[in-house]
Amino acid sequence: METSSAPSPRYRILAERLAQSIAAAAFRAGDRLPSVRELAAAERVSVATAVAAYRDLEDRRLIQARPKSGFFVAARRPSFPEPETHRRTRPVPESVSVSGLIMEILDAARDSSMVPLASASPSDIHVMPSRKVARALGARLQREPGLATHYRMGPGYAPLRRAIAQHAFGYGCLLEPDDIVVTNGCMEALTLALRALVKPGQAVALESPTYFSVLQILESLGIKALELPTNPRTGLSVDALEFITREPGAVAAVVVSANFSNPLGSLMPDAEKRRLARLMEERGIPVIEDDVYGDIHFGEQRPRPIKHWDRSGNVLLCASFSKTLAPGLRVGWIAPGRYRDAVTMLKFTTSVTTSELVQAAAAELIGAGGFERHLRKLRDLFRVQVERTTQAVEQYFPAGCRVTRPQGGFVLWIELPEAIDALALFWKSLEAGVSIAPGVMFSATATYRHHIRISCDNPFSDVTNDALARVGAIARDLARA
Amino acid sequence: METSSAPSPRYRILAERLAQSIAAAAFRAGDRLPSVRELAAAERVSVATAVAAYRDLEDRRLIQARPKSGFFVAARRPSFPEPETHRRTRPVPESVSVSGLIMEILDAARDSSMVPLASASPSDIHVMPSRKVARALGARLQREPGLATHYRMGPGYAPLRRAIAQHAFGYGCLLEPDDIVVTNGCMEALTLALRALVKPGQAVALESPTYFSVLQILESLGIKALELPTNPRTGLSVDALEFITREPGAVAAVVVSANFSNPLGSLMPDAEKRRLARLMEERGIPVIEDDVYGDIHFGEQRPRPIKHWDRSGNVLLCASFSKTLAPGLRVGWIAPGRYRDAVTMLKFTTSVTTSELVQAAAAELIGAGGFERHLRKLRDLFRVQVERTTQAVEQYFPAGCRVTRPQGGFVLWIELPEAIDALALFWKSLEAGVSIAPGVMFSATATYRHHIRISCDNPFSDVTNDALARVGAIARDLARA
Repeated sequence: METSSAPSPRYRILAERLAQSIAAAAFRAGDRLPSVRELAAAERVSVATAVAAYRDLEDRRLIQARPKSGFFVAARRPSFPEPETHRRTRPVPESVSVSGLIMEILDAARDSSMVPLASASPSDIHVMPSRKVARALGARLQREPGLATHYRMGPGYAPLRRAIAQHAFGYGCLLEPDDIVVTNGCMEALTLALRALVKPGQAVALESPTYFSVLQILESLGIKALELPTNPRTGLSVDALEFITREPGAVAAVVVSANFSNPLGSLMPDAEKRRLARLMEERGIPVIEDDVYGDIHFGEQRPRPIKHWDRSGNVLLCASFSKTLAPGLRVGWIAPGRYRDAVTMLKFTTSVTTSELVQAAAAELIGAGGFERHLRKLRDLFRVQVERTTQAVEQYFPAGCRVTRPQGGFVLWIELPEAIDALALFWKSLEAGVSIAPGVMFSATATYRHHIRISCDNPFSDVTNDALARVGAIARDLARA
Repeated sequence: METSSAPSPRYRILAERLAQSIAAAAFRAGDRLPSVRELAAAERVSVATAVAAYRDLEDRRLIQARPKSGFFVAARRPSFPEPETHRRTRPVPESVSVSGLIMEILDAARDSSMVPLASASPSDIHVMPSRKVARALGARLQREPGLATHYRMGPGYAPLRRAIAQHAFGYGCLLEPDDIVVTNGCMEALTLALRALVKPGQAVALESPTYFSVLQILESLGIKALELPTNPRTGLSVDALEFITREPGAVAAVVVSANFSNPLGSLMPDAEKRRLARLMEERGIPVIEDDVYGDIHFGEQRPRPIKHWDRSGNVLLCASFSKTLAPGLRVGWIAPGRYRDAVTMLKFTTSVTTSELVQAAAAELIGAGGFERHLRKLRDLFRVQVERTTQAVEQYFPAGCRVTRPQGGFVLWIELPEAIDALALFWKSLEAGVSIAPGVMFSATATYRHHIRISCDNPFSDVTNDALARVGAIARDLARA
């Protein structure tokens, strides 16, 4: 994200750094902060600058001055509660026809002068290792100029498939390189899986709300969506899935994102993942698992995908490096289990193979020891950005909002008071130079009219803060109207 | 193509160079060749070497010794006639189920120890400008490291779409950059076009024989194939198309490759192209045009695509740089006419966008002045390779064969005597270390049992010559059996 605004004054830079430390929990509520003089000396700024920084943080209610004692980290404001599971009446398969609306929204939000809080695609050069990718590629091309021109048929560049298998081993998935087909991003992986398993007119079960592009794929293939209740914290309701699949043929597959689903950021507990895997195996319903966010966990452990509990090749694991390495590389993959032949053939007939050049770039970066280090940095970064964005939302948005507490990924799902039409908020925010994603994009039904998704993929800055203040002000206006 | 055989002796190298001059028509039938002494002096070889070279050419019946007069270019042997249009009884829409057979054949033929005469994918470093692509990419990445990681939604990298529009202007297609959607190779372009226009169960009209991967796309989408008579010289029968489309709804689209169709290499005359465009416009049947071979013409003029005669956006022009620049880049494009919105949306939902890195590489190479020069070189190369391969086929294959005389592209279609089962020839040739493409791959019906396609995409060498000699010997054996 680049902005054309003037550089921040020194006190704002200092305040921002302190705010980040607070968000990252280096300082906790009630901790005493350094005195103004200590701060000035440590940071080599004037006392006036240190005072101004603390005033700024006080205005933002992040710290409190206690007379004669100094400055303390403020107790978190009574925060917005989490949204609850959205329960409709009994879910039924719906024909999907939201692509037009989604494209209209995406087109409108694409204007590069907007503060981009709509798209979940980290491409900022501070977030993604662009220079590293570029250097690695340059070196490879010098050693092997044929890389850009040659092509090999088959499931993908062998060193990349090995690197993926090794990485997957680290989170409990025992894959052979030959179990993996490289794709043009995770979207192609999901498209191939759906084309291999589901016929037009059939239905698939999925989370609600769900990633809008999955809905677009379903619409383009004439597949119906059966949206199931999904808890913002624990994900897809396996109870609901159990109930709905009692009727044979009710759904041809399940599409699920157990690790930090988009937009809820929910994380399915291991016991539920296992239960889902067993249940679908028994009932002969394949599971298409979207794990693009799995590597971005805020907790200690990389959560396991459902695939870990797959005994019969019934789970088709789809992922990519678009969220962790480079969205522009367009390298994803699928481990299609016992549907390997069908998926391999579809990949061949759809796009033959993925450019070996970009595959080699991905292999170079994942295979090298630096990838885990990069991921650790990235997780810290996203965690702080999510926390800072949450704070700003709680500061600027009207009372009555609910906001998710994702345990990974980098998006927030906000439920607004019922008086606020999220599409109206979307259009008015655009006028104010900020793009957000309205909730109607995330369901085939018109369920999420009072919801928005905000992406925290770019470094939190004054620009982000001001953008959220503007959106919050508009939301407050709409709530009053 | 790399071979592990020992380097050729000097006389074979000289003989090969002379053979190429003859193929390229630098020498014509009846021309007197330099004397042995002249040749030895000019080439700085011993007289013995010059004699051995002429003997070799004599053995191959390319030159004749006339007592006391010297060596002369031989009159072309009575050459194999061209195949005729294959006419079945009235064509009907057929369900396609050849993908399994095709994959089996391709898998078998993929063994890298084979002399690869099956695949039509020039990737030899002598043919494709690998080093140039690598250099251009390296330079771009240094200037713009974000290229590998950033991504932009939308129809593709603007400089590439401009370069494509300029190139297309040169062959009579007036396209705006905004009329073009960049794809992952031409296969994705064709897949998107078919998904946008044709529903499962509907039929499309196409050439017979036709490119096998088009049949695989149809099969994967549940679309029927209505294969029309196609003349090896003038292409798809517009008369047959006219007849078949009298019945409204008989086909939902036409898929046609007017310029050097694969495998026939046929070139549709301009008048027929115009007629086809007008007729389909009148009848409201969209035309999906595959123009991947258009740039590889052996005649003076780059032939126009049918798109040139398109007045109403009814023609969806699909192409790529896989045959002219680098198969491995996986960069293709589609100009979808009035189906732009549908195709754009499908591209987005299928693979979001094509890697900007490979798009930039393509833009760099096409936009630069050197592309036309490269194409000229490539055409000369392919023309000579096609001619040399034809000579070898006529030399080694049994009487009763027919072979196409393509005016562009780089594949030959050979009709064998009826006694020869082309699949048997395929398997036996594999055993002898040579991969060829059996005719059954090129039709949804089992029509082409006595046909093979041979690709001339790699430089003709002793290895190629020996491989063709082996296949010819097997064919002669099978003819006698």
